[in-house]
Amino acid sequence: MSDASRPIAILGGTGPAGMGLALRWARAGETIVLGSRDAHRAEQAAKNIKTRAGNQARVSGMENSAACATADLLVLTVPFEGQAALLKQLKPAIRPGSILIDATVALAAAVGGRASRTLGVWQGSSAQQAEELVPKGVSVAAAFHNLSAELLNGDETLDCDVIVCSDDPQASQLTRALAARIPGVRAIDGGKLENARALEQITALLIGLNIRHKGHAGIRITGLPSEAYR
Amino acid sequence: MSDASRPIAILGGTGPAGMGLALRWARAGETIVLGSRDAHRAEQAAKNIKTRAGNQARVSGMENSAACATADLLVLTVPFEGQAALLKQLKPAIRPGSILIDATVALAAAVGGRASRTLGVWQGSSAQQAEELVPKGVSVAAAFHNLSAELLNGDETLDCDVIVCSDDPQASQLTRALAARIPGVRAIDGGKLENARALEQITALLIGLNIRHKGHAGIRITGLPSEAYR
Repeated sequence: MSDASRPIAILGGTGPAGMGLALRWARAGETIVLGSRDAHRAEQAAKNIKTRAGNQARVSGMENSAACATADLLVLTVPFEGQAALLKQLKPAIRPGSILIDATVALAAAVGGRASRTLGVWQGSSAQQAEELVPKGVSVAAAFHNLSAELLNGDETLDCDVIVCSDDPQASQLTRALAARIPGVRAIDGGKLENARALEQITALLIGLNIRHKGHAGIRITGLPSEAYR
Repeated sequence: MSDASRPIAILGGTGPAGMGLALRWARAGETIVLGSRDAHRAEQAAKNIKTRAGNQARVSGMENSAACATADLLVLTVPFEGQAALLKQLKPAIRPGSILIDATVALAAAVGGRASRTLGVWQGSSAQQAEELVPKGVSVAAAFHNLSAELLNGDETLDCDVIVCSDDPQASQLTRALAARIPGVRAIDGGKLENARALEQITALLIGLNIRHKGHAGIRITGLPSEAYR
């Protein structure tokens, strides 16, 4: 990345995960468009990020479809129960050639169950469900499931790796570059989109560890050669 | 642990994972009984471990059922395709009150598929399948899925955490104590046995990373309070 003229639209971006990513990327000099169902809420959230990231930060807020139309780098940070409906609604607004980075996890909380359990998704994972719902020619990458929203919204350097899965090598590379802009994060190519299944399971495991041990768990991958980490 | 008079039987223990655990625990002073279908093979493997761990090491080898009858700490390190059959065979030999530590992962390799993919197991995970197959009163813990067999068989300190899942708090604690005897390993209570689902998925992900990046991947869990790590 570092091409700050290429904005990143964070859809459903006023939740904790979206806000945290927006804060970190705004601080790194990226141009952020926060999307929300409610344009006013998005504007307020953008103001909030600007206050924290400094006045030079480039952050705006607008309704999800409008946000979508401003960018070809889209990050989806909604609870699983909202994912399919939002993608169907956004379909006409998504620009051809866009990259959709999906951070959704099918937690059982979506249907009133525990956040430490997952639902089975017919396609194999939330990311693969997203791929079925985006227009043709739009690439999907799965990433950012395992960063603590609470830590992202803080000021500390993170201690976590981001594994990126995508069937499109360019989408994977761009997503890894974005991940590496977050202080303390190393990005790792996790191969095909289908491997998102495992990434999404890890989130449920980490949520369980957080409940049990009262922490903000993340993961580091050890034992790979240094060129595997970005 | 450290109660070296309480032997650990490693069933299917002549494969790379079993041998690696045996080596590390033998070096730590534990008493190891290696089990194999073939008693002669088990004896040879035990000799091999003794050569590497030093002559004071307490390691013997015998047929799986015989190994099972000598210990109440059982570690199962067989490929998924052999798990159910071995447990059915061992059922009469497993002592009441034993703890079975299952390290099995239902990799698709079991049916000729890829080791970076998993099979769906009806019970939810290989560990839960094991629980269905052990005699009443035997506790199952899931652990050690994500330690590289190659690194275990080496001499270096590991850089990996072991998450332990069990419905029996005492089995979990004993398993964590055993894990922590491996140099470089921190043990973490991962809660209920059902959470083994996520642990087993991680193995497939790590295998995929190893193939892609030519490494020996492991995981560390970050962000938990220090008392969460043993």
